Amino acid sequence: MSPDSLQLRRIGRVESPLTDAASAPKQGDEGAPDAWIVFERDILAGLDGVGAGDRVIVLTWLDRAERDLLKVHPRDDPSNPLRGVFGTRSADRPNPIGLHEVEVIAIEGERMRVRPLEALDGTPVVDLKPVL
Amino acid sequence: MSPDSLQLRRIGRVESPLTDAASAPKQGDEGAPDAWIVFERDILAGLDGVGAGDRVIVLTWLDRAERDLLKVHPRDDPSNPLRGVFGTRSADRPNPIGLHEVEVIAIEGERMRVRPLEALDGTPVVDLKPVL
Repeated sequence: MSPDSLQLRRIGRVESPLTDAASAPKQGDEGAPDAWIVFERDILAGLDGVGAGDRVIVLTWLDRAERDLLKVHPRDDPSNPLRGVFGTRSADRPNPIGLHEVEVIAIEGERMRVRPLEALDGTPVVDLKPVL
Repeated sequence: MSPDSLQLRRIGRVESPLTDAASAPKQGDEGAPDAWIVFERDILAGLDGVGAGDRVIVLTWLDRAERDLLKVHPRDDPSNPLRGVFGTRSADRPNPIGLHEVEVIAIEGERMRVRPLEALDGTPVVDLKPVL
């Protein structure tokens, strides 16, 4: 396996009113807002067949996360005992990939409106999959 | 964002009787076998608190996928009309990240037994998250 073989490419990015990690909801169902995903034009053919009303899983690259933490206080609450990151949904983990189950509200050109999405403004999007 | 900032690292790899993509189940619930995940020793602290009986999502890097396809025949069946890859669970997609919901059967040192897992033998593992 070549060293660069696990290199992700950004296929889009989040446009959201959320800009502050400390105050953002930790999960979509905790009051996260609607957001836009703006896709790169050269991958738009890959969205053929995805439409409003679909439930999809958005995969993001949580670019503001700490990658060298292996234990965290769940939900950033110091009163919670330290726990291995793989037993939590903390953004801080060796590979900070976020999973977000959302509903597609609308598609306008290269822009897709989704809800709810707790990812911060500017977060890279790396994949989209249908909910099975 | 630096060019290498979306670089994943392998945290483990799959040990499975499945070696042939063409004959492997396409989803875990389509007859996939039990498998082992063998973790890198330097991330084991991140598994603290994960145990037998837990339901987890394994994220893999589907290293035998085609990354330059944007449309596929769903389920590799030529009679299915071409569809954008983001509307399918095809392994072939720009960022071939696999999502696998499994049950943890046992943990023995750096080895974790899970079921069912449709990933092929040798597939890199990049993350593990609890099912919410």
